Amino acid sequence: MAIKRRKVSVIGGGFTGATTALMVAQKELGDVVLVDIPQMENPTKGKALDMLEASPVQGFDSNIIGTSNYEDTADSDIVVITAGIARKPGMSRDDLVNTNAKIMKAVTKEIVKHSPNCYIVVLTNPVDAMTYTVFKESGFPKNRVIGQSGVLDTARFRTFVSQELNVSVEDVTGFVLGGHGDDMVPLVRYSYAGGIPLEKLIPAERLEQIVERTRKGGGEIVNLLGNGSAYYAPAASIVQMVEAILKDKKRIIPTIAYLEGEYGYSDLYLGVPTIIGGDGIEKIIELDLTDEEKAGLQKSVDAVKSVMTVLQ
Amino acid sequence: MAIKRRKVSVIGGGFTGATTALMVAQKELGDVVLVDIPQMENPTKGKALDMLEASPVQGFDSNIIGTSNYEDTADSDIVVITAGIARKPGMSRDDLVNTNAKIMKAVTKEIVKHSPNCYIVVLTNPVDAMTYTVFKESGFPKNRVIGQSGVLDTARFRTFVSQELNVSVEDVTGFVLGGHGDDMVPLVRYSYAGGIPLEKLIPAERLEQIVERTRKGGGEIVNLLGNGSAYYAPAASIVQMVEAILKDKKRIIPTIAYLEGEYGYSDLYLGVPTIIGGDGIEKIIELDLTDEEKAGLQKSVDAVKSVMTVLQ
Amino acid sequence: MAIKRRKVSVIGGGFTGATTALMVAQKELGDVVLVDIPQMENPTKGKALDMLEASPVQGFDSNIIGTSNYEDTADSDIVVITAGIARKPGMSRDDLVNTNAKIMKAVTKEIVKHSPNCYIVVLTNPVDAMTYTVFKESGFPKNRVIGQSGVLDTARFRTFVSQELNVSVEDVTGFVLGGHGDDMVPLVRYSYAGGIPLEKLIPAERLEQIVERTRKGGGEIVNLLGNGSAYYAPAASIVQMVEAILKDKKRIIPTIAYLEGEYGYSDLYLGVPTIIGGDGIEKIIELDLTDEEKAGLQKSVDAVKSVMTVLQ
Amino acid sequence: MAIKRRKVSVIGGGFTGATTALMVAQKELGDVVLVDIPQMENPTKGKALDMLEASPVQGFDSNIIGTSNYEDTADSDIVVITAGIARKPGMSRDDLVNTNAKIMKAVTKEIVKHSPNCYIVVLTNPVDAMTYTVFKESGFPKNRVIGQSGVLDTARFRTFVSQELNVSVEDVTGFVLGGHGDDMVPLVRYSYAGGIPLEKLIPAERLEQIVERTRKGGGEIVNLLGNGSAYYAPAASIVQMVEAILKDKKRIIPTIAYLEGEYGYSDLYLGVPTIIGGDGIEKIIELDLTDEEKAGLQKSVDAVKSVMTVLQ
Repeated sequence: MAIKRRKVSVIGGGFTGATTALMVAQKELGDVVLVDIPQMENPTKGKALDMLEASPVQGFDSNIIGTSNYEDTADSDIVVITAGIARKPGMSRDDLVNTNAKIMKAVTKEIVKHSPNCYIVVLTNPVDAMTYTVFKESGFPKNRVIGQSGVLDTARFRTFVSQELNVSVEDVTGFVLGGHGDDMVPLVRYSYAGGIPLEKLIPAERLEQIVERTRKGGGEIVNLLGNGSAYYAPAASIVQMVEAILKDKKRIIPTIAYLEGEYGYSDLYLGVPTIIGGDGIEKIIELDLTDEEKAGLQKSVDAVKSVMTVLQ
Repeated sequence: MAIKRRKVSVIGGGFTGATTALMVAQKELGDVVLVDIPQMENPTKGKALDMLEASPVQGFDSNIIGTSNYEDTADSDIVVITAGIARKPGMSRDDLVNTNAKIMKAVTKEIVKHSPNCYIVVLTNPVDAMTYTVFKESGFPKNRVIGQSGVLDTARFRTFVSQELNVSVEDVTGFVLGGHGDDMVPLVRYSYAGGIPLEKLIPAERLEQIVERTRKGGGEIVNLLGNGSAYYAPAASIVQMVEAILKDKKRIIPTIAYLEGEYGYSDLYLGVPTIIGGDGIEKIIELDLTDEEKAGLQKSVDAVKSVMTVLQ
Repeated sequence: MAIKRRKVSVIGGGFTGATTALMVAQKELGDVVLVDIPQMENPTKGKALDMLEASPVQGFDSNIIGTSNYEDTADSDIVVITAGIARKPGMSRDDLVNTNAKIMKAVTKEIVKHSPNCYIVVLTNPVDAMTYTVFKESGFPKNRVIGQSGVLDTARFRTFVSQELNVSVEDVTGFVLGGHGDDMVPLVRYSYAGGIPLEKLIPAERLEQIVERTRKGGGEIVNLLGNGSAYYAPAASIVQMVEAILKDKKRIIPTIAYLEGEYGYSDLYLGVPTIIGGDGIEKIIELDLTDEEKAGLQKSVDAVKSVMTVLQ
Repeated sequence: MAIKRRKVSVIGGGFTGATTALMVAQKELGDVVLVDIPQMENPTKGKALDMLEASPVQGFDSNIIGTSNYEDTADSDIVVITAGIARKPGMSRDDLVNTNAKIMKAVTKEIVKHSPNCYIVVLTNPVDAMTYTVFKESGFPKNRVIGQSGVLDTARFRTFVSQELNVSVEDVTGFVLGGHGDDMVPLVRYSYAGGIPLEKLIPAERLEQIVERTRKGGGEIVNLLGNGSAYYAPAASIVQMVEAILKDKKRIIPTIAYLEGEYGYSDLYLGVPTIIGGDGIEKIIELDLTDEEKAGLQKSVDAVKSVMTVLQ
């Protein structure tokens, strides 16, 4: 049997989806299908073609197509969901949640129909609840439905620490639990530069500022852009997860995983350290938490549950 | 003396400029300064920060900043100019040319002031005339002012051929002379797949369709996008030139170069095969042309000159 | 079903085999099994472990093991054969051929037993006859048994041309037919720098010297080393073929392929331009040859057949 | 002024030196000069040419030459010293030390003469004493003379941990102080998988076995090879330091640095955590040590001093 390229479909052809598509193709992880709604079919095709035209210059052999037809996603190894609306002025949180949940359900139906064996990575916000929605709708085993938030949160944290210490980003690590952004529970004691705990290298007060800046990291970009939100670092974060699965790298990555008792919680998706490999979430790593961390995590869980109660 | 990172400034923080900035940083070619006008300073800062936050995930150590202050570009090794307006409905070509020429002059003044030894790569359209304008305004020697068009045109051509033959993009080459897009002079006889002349692999009629599609390649993307123009492949094309200079690769690349008698023309910028290395355009390669190719090139020159007469 | 890493086995743990193993692993093309005879098991394990210990520094996740047990190669996607002896002083050519043919047969039995669906790439000399031997012994379809020689020959040619013209190796191409080394048939008219035929860039006499140096390229290294033969460029050449298959790149690569009428020959393995993708040799490209080229190819065929008559 | 490629010279054309040369070239960090004694000039030229002939296949533009003439190393940015003899059966340690010290002095004279502004990275064993010898002989400031040992020791440790836990090498870190191999002081409490202290993931006894295996890591390879010692991982380790300097990455890397009071010692070279960037060792990071670690470090220092007393 001939060896075939892997196939990655990206649902949502906005900036994050398109950047994800490009990065997957540049790494030759597989062929890429970028999907958007019929009204956006032409722009999506245009982006895909523009990316493809970069391939001879950059030397990658990955096909990239834009489409609104889910049949083109058939037999994907991985499907990334970036579709959904952003909160607009005057829109209630509940409206946002329910609109995006409806989108998740519709999208998931199509994914399951055409790629019944795929792994799904979800980025749409509020990501904990949306990953849960996709999980339930898909009927997939829990290891095959994964949400992204911790890679991005720690990437921002690592960037700020790297700049603070004027050292390579390669040598700075970060660690978060719980929800995305405001609700994240930073475990600074598990964050290092060159293996040295950050607490020994950065004064506590300054470190707290960096944590706080990380929490508000998405908002900082939104405020600067004035119109729209971050997409470069979010796309890079997703692609790290996609690569970990397709290359069976067994990376230790903070992801949004379905809990069945871990950390004392069940039947919800929450950010925890996981091993990501060829079978998706291959393991959830459980850590002993301090009381303060436990309290933070509980707060995070409350926030996730509060969103989930909105789901009809 | 300590070893310092190279420095690349990109003028114009739109999609092409931003994508160029990211690709330069990802390749660790140097630190990157993305410059736009004061009104766009915040969005430019936002894009730069978003890119920087991708660096821990992708493992590159290149600083990226957004700014409207040219002092931040001081001592750049290379400055890329993507600034300028696109033609809007109802705008005459002459208005476009003169507006962009004014922008080129203002931008060039700042570049020369802060980076008197840099190499300048120009992408702004109409690129032949704009590169000429930058050359004259800068007072730089001709090897240090270079326009981009041929890398992009051949990238599109190579993409279409690769799809037609279902072979790797790495093994398809293309060759163009003269102006960008409509005015390009394709030298199909110098274009190959795996070293085999395309004329032996693709029927003449079909090959002509591919050439024609290449000519209209920019328009094809514009039509699909509906709003805006290509930026992924253009950025990749610029970055190939930037890399060739910073790594002194001595690549044979079609660029827009200042002619002093080559191909029978003088005192104008035109697309020709060049060797690009650590000293910019290190050589213009002259080829014998057929009568048909000569006629095509003359037409291209006429078009360039027609634009240049507009310049005040 | 979980996504699994590809698996590449390399038979022969000498310098070429070991370097091939490292390059496959560095590119994260899959896990690697390096196989040698039981007497060499420990050194082979040592090399594999040393390579593996480079992986944290270089950031690749590929397992590499050394072994003398073919069971460890089970279910390989690709098996590379570098095993065999080199000609020693006083050894007749026939002895060399028959010794290596015996090795090919023994090795192939094991390969087929443990990886009945794999693709086999052969490097052992005399490579045309050895690839034929492996093909016959394996009972595999012809597309799944491939010999290497043309990538290496053209790599040497490209290196010399690149140095001659002082241009990037990326922009120089070469083209050969027929046997390896002395018997190769260079198609200089299909060799270019930046798409420009070399005949327009290098004087005929000088070009002939470069061709002649290429023919003797293996011997040049042998003479310089004093003890042993080339392995860096041979390994890189094999890995290009391995990558083309595993990523289904459909590269146009000169390989040693089984002919059934192509170029007027049948039932022998000969160097010809091929498309290498996920199904091995997906196509042989036939070219019109000049009389001189045809004569060169016939000479090459005669040499291959002369070796094959030795095979018992 | 045209942009020039960086230049790296590697003294010693054995397996480690040659592998280092190849890896520097593959990463396009600069042109490479591989130097050995006149009697080895031809084999060194042979290896360099073989590597260069891999460049068209792998797409790197770095010149590689072999030579015995130090004039060819002129104006190197970095010089790596791998030259020296290995201890042979029956040879006393003192003979080894004095022989290699003589080589260091001779080599350093040539380096200083032809590249007075370069950075020197030393690999020759016993590396602490040899780096000290090069430092004294060169008259260079301490930041420009650096020894390698910790990158390799931690690479081995990380490999073993990665295999133990079946996780990506990218997510495992290690930390050592003091001398190389037997004398190394592992700081397991600063070693992690995915940011989680290894002590929480691996039983203490098993972790101690891994530490012990790391200590004997060089010997393990020597024993397996039967003839010769490790070179893949050592070369990769050197190249990480070379890259950190040439790209000014400011990596936090354990290196052998000249101490002037740090950790309570002076006028000796010892393995400590450092920041390596465009100015070589830009900073030594001082950590609080436990009493046990202090004792280990003292033992390491005693061993280094014992070797240094041998130096005449």
